[in-house]
Amino acid sequence: MCRWMGWLGQPVLMDELLFKPQHGIVDQSLHSRMGAETTNGDGFGVGWYGAGEGPGVYHSVAPAWGDANLRELAAHIESPLFLAHVRAAIGSPIQQTNCHPFRHDGWLCVHNGYIADFHLLRRDVMLAIAPDQFADVHGSTDTEVVFHLALTFGLESDPIGALEQTVGLIEATAREHGVAAPVQGTFGVSDGTCLWAVRYATEGPARSLFASADVDTVTRLHPDNPRLQRFSEGDRLIVSEPFADLPGAWHEIPEATAVCARRGGALEERPFRPRVDAPASVA
Amino acid sequence: MCRWMGWLGQPVLMDELLFKPQHGIVDQSLHSRMGAETTNGDGFGVGWYGAGEGPGVYHSVAPAWGDANLRELAAHIESPLFLAHVRAAIGSPIQQTNCHPFRHDGWLCVHNGYIADFHLLRRDVMLAIAPDQFADVHGSTDTEVVFHLALTFGLESDPIGALEQTVGLIEATAREHGVAAPVQGTFGVSDGTCLWAVRYATEGPARSLFASADVDTVTRLHPDNPRLQRFSEGDRLIVSEPFADLPGAWHEIPEATAVCARRGGALEERPFRPRVDAPASVA
Amino acid sequence: MCRWMGWLGQPVLMDELLFKPQHGIVDQSLHSRMGAETTNGDGFGVGWYGAGEGPGVYHSVAPAWGDANLRELAAHIESPLFLAHVRAAIGSPIQQTNCHPFRHDGWLCVHNGYIADFHLLRRDVMLAIAPDQFADVHGSTDTEVVFHLALTFGLESDPIGALEQTVGLIEATAREHGVAAPVQGTFGVSDGTCLWAVRYATEGPARSLFASADVDTVTRLHPDNPRLQRFSEGDRLIVSEPFADLPGAWHEIPEATAVCARRGGALEERPFRPRVDAPASVA
Amino acid sequence: MCRWMGWLGQPVLMDELLFKPQHGIVDQSLHSRMGAETTNGDGFGVGWYGAGEGPGVYHSVAPAWGDANLRELAAHIESPLFLAHVRAAIGSPIQQTNCHPFRHDGWLCVHNGYIADFHLLRRDVMLAIAPDQFADVHGSTDTEVVFHLALTFGLESDPIGALEQTVGLIEATAREHGVAAPVQGTFGVSDGTCLWAVRYATEGPARSLFASADVDTVTRLHPDNPRLQRFSEGDRLIVSEPFADLPGAWHEIPEATAVCARRGGALEERPFRPRVDAPASVA
Repeated sequence: MCRWMGWLGQPVLMDELLFKPQHGIVDQSLHSRMGAETTNGDGFGVGWYGAGEGPGVYHSVAPAWGDANLRELAAHIESPLFLAHVRAAIGSPIQQTNCHPFRHDGWLCVHNGYIADFHLLRRDVMLAIAPDQFADVHGSTDTEVVFHLALTFGLESDPIGALEQTVGLIEATAREHGVAAPVQGTFGVSDGTCLWAVRYATEGPARSLFASADVDTVTRLHPDNPRLQRFSEGDRLIVSEPFADLPGAWHEIPEATAVCARRGGALEERPFRPRVDAPASVA
Repeated sequence: MCRWMGWLGQPVLMDELLFKPQHGIVDQSLHSRMGAETTNGDGFGVGWYGAGEGPGVYHSVAPAWGDANLRELAAHIESPLFLAHVRAAIGSPIQQTNCHPFRHDGWLCVHNGYIADFHLLRRDVMLAIAPDQFADVHGSTDTEVVFHLALTFGLESDPIGALEQTVGLIEATAREHGVAAPVQGTFGVSDGTCLWAVRYATEGPARSLFASADVDTVTRLHPDNPRLQRFSEGDRLIVSEPFADLPGAWHEIPEATAVCARRGGALEERPFRPRVDAPASVA
Repeated sequence: MCRWMGWLGQPVLMDELLFKPQHGIVDQSLHSRMGAETTNGDGFGVGWYGAGEGPGVYHSVAPAWGDANLRELAAHIESPLFLAHVRAAIGSPIQQTNCHPFRHDGWLCVHNGYIADFHLLRRDVMLAIAPDQFADVHGSTDTEVVFHLALTFGLESDPIGALEQTVGLIEATAREHGVAAPVQGTFGVSDGTCLWAVRYATEGPARSLFASADVDTVTRLHPDNPRLQRFSEGDRLIVSEPFADLPGAWHEIPEATAVCARRGGALEERPFRPRVDAPASVA
Repeated sequence: MCRWMGWLGQPVLMDELLFKPQHGIVDQSLHSRMGAETTNGDGFGVGWYGAGEGPGVYHSVAPAWGDANLRELAAHIESPLFLAHVRAAIGSPIQQTNCHPFRHDGWLCVHNGYIADFHLLRRDVMLAIAPDQFADVHGSTDTEVVFHLALTFGLESDPIGALEQTVGLIEATAREHGVAAPVQGTFGVSDGTCLWAVRYATEGPARSLFASADVDTVTRLHPDNPRLQRFSEGDRLIVSEPFADLPGAWHEIPEATAVCARRGGALEERPFRPRVDAPASVA
């Protein structure tokens, strides 16, 4: 049910992190070890900040492991902040508008997990999207709706707070419809300066999520890995699933937790607490 | 802005009507003469009744003229009733879920034209779809919403009446939003026994629509066309744009008119009058 | 490295054998158990005899498990003889012209396996193709070259003999280039009346290949399987990998063996012996 | 039969030249004015020099006008030298390996035109490719064969000389097969430092080809075009067809002529004279 990764650090060619690591995200498209499914072959996407205005996105319905264009782009686009996502569809069509990252203005959003019985909830949660943004939902995934709800709730000024309200609204809507355990997953969002990530499930264990340790720890653990020697202070990875060639270099993000990775290396962590604020004002 | 055709008659290999006529629908994908655009290269679809349960559909994001699979399928699938559609996208993404024909249970629907300023109206008209069908809208076209509105209004028992209510609702919604001339186009729907078609525009001339004349007339006009000699009584074509090799064999469907082609050759014609019935019951 | 299946029997909707069996070929695209790879997600194809002239083919670069059109076609095309193939690419591009089955006139061909170091041998073996067929090779797979070699060697009059000469030529060419163990795999070919299959490896164990037992045995083994009760005498399946819901109903085809399934249920078996005939005449 | 453009100059976001000019190359994919066909919708490609090693390429089977990814990439990739190509297929399949630019090591190659009766000549001209490069031909276009012939003849040390030998060999092969007027078109090649282009037809007028005038002339002609005011000395465009918003700013490259655009603004022009050198050494 999808895997994703985010990079915040020095500018790198994207293939340094997409293709070159053992068990990087592209390998996870074919052989995920910790995901709900082994195969994440129902399309993929990358979104990056770099040249041009705002983030660029590349979405493909092909499996990441076999897309010739992805190899090309990864080897020729350099970015100091990017998100990549490989998809295992669970019902919704395999089409570019269902590929993550989703974008709105300068923001990107990825998700691993699901809204349970989304077809039962879709109408009600879409009605909570700001009416003038309703027509911006082009695909049919739960994630795109989550993203537009979060934008409605103020993602651009308080990303984690907006996601807390979004999840709260979905949980409240699910209760009305008798849907149990509605929210499962991890979310990643960015505005090009920071990388926010959330790990949360209404019930039971949430999907896996890890942040790379600080660079000193990583390079001390792996003195012989030449790729790592190029890492510098402030480089940070957030991943659904660790890269195989960096054992020990990962910090598991706890359940019901949000993190924010900032330029310079800071990784802030706080509880993630869904809430319902003044529902009348958004319905 | 799209071209479409429907066939109701003896079972034929689909390529008899898709590829073999001069200026058939596939040729119209590259060189439309009467359409709003010359090129209808933003995907296509066919829906046919034949073997198996209900209609089959084949949707592709490739231009019809260049899709190798379409040639194969057309040359190897036989059907007594099918609809084909070539698309010129006007804003919504090029993806299979935006390709016509749309299907619901045993019904197919195609459309040539547009809902003006659909992004302004989308939310309100989607709210008029029966709530339990809301999540069945997988793509982002106006047509898919029109189809689900018509299903909500009883398409399966009274196709033309349901389309009249659908158009009425859209026109009423447009008035509320200050959108002028909201509905433009031709619609084709079928349940596998009959073929209904509508030509209508809120204002100004509607997109072109033609029905083939009865078979006697057609064969008398073209005694040397071997393909026509195979036509039999009761065969009927409805097309956005006549095939070039059959001049004189077409009957232009008047503005604001609905037709119903039935097995055996009958072609019924009646006025198409959008109306708003008891809006409270559907909102 | 690919999985395939062939059906020869009563006309059936293709999804009876593609989608409905437990661990049928579409399931094998995602979860192969006996193949060299678990995932066969690099495109697929079906070729069928039925309506229209000669076989139809449908090729797609999408994984079989996620292709919406395949579900449609399988549920609406009926055929008494068809071949399906799911691909795991090993170097050559993922494109429709590299998808099996390959077709020439009324013949279809599928392959599971490889020609070792094909890039070293490609030029020399392509020169052995009849010059007037050279330009018919549109893709870049080893299989398409094998098929055109077999056509050159008289596939249409003696399928197994032609494949023996083809494999013999490839092995001789490999020896000249110092390539060991050049041929590995199973081949399936049909002209619409019979289904020929070969299991062979120059060295070591060949890829798996099975034929269904005669219908009496199958139905006696599985008296409660309703799908099987519809089978009739003369129905025959040849598969890379057995369907899970029919244990015991399969006959493993021995190494270095060719079989021919004929209408009526006969399954002939003979040794497969590569040979080089009069090389001067074809080189 | 295709349109292409090349840019050599200051680094620009590719959309400055792909999408923003009136009647730029993307517009030419839908509405070519000087090409053999109006529609060039059978795939496209861009190849650019910039970040990463060697040129990157992006190939798509979708029409350029409708490819969402192309808009993204063009708006977020900056390059001082790139080639773009929109394709009208004439027989060979629509697949990424048939999309231009073709790449070998650091070289890119595009072509507008055709080799007449290529299916008759393909075998013989492919035999003239250096045997160890034969297996690098992955698609089925004439252009890819031309490119590998030119590499065989020394493209990397003398691009125009190698193309003269390539065309000479094709013309000689055509004579043997009784094929008249075999070579038609324009070629563009680059190694990332210079941009070479050729306009040539064995008989009759060759496809159109233009180079932009020097920057002073262009800006003097169009003092009110803000995009042009950003041009600087040494910027150079070579195009199949002029951009509409720059009338007068183009120099038509004569028939049977090769040009080389170099950094700094030099545009060298010389006759293009196909020749056959020591055929024995390459056959």
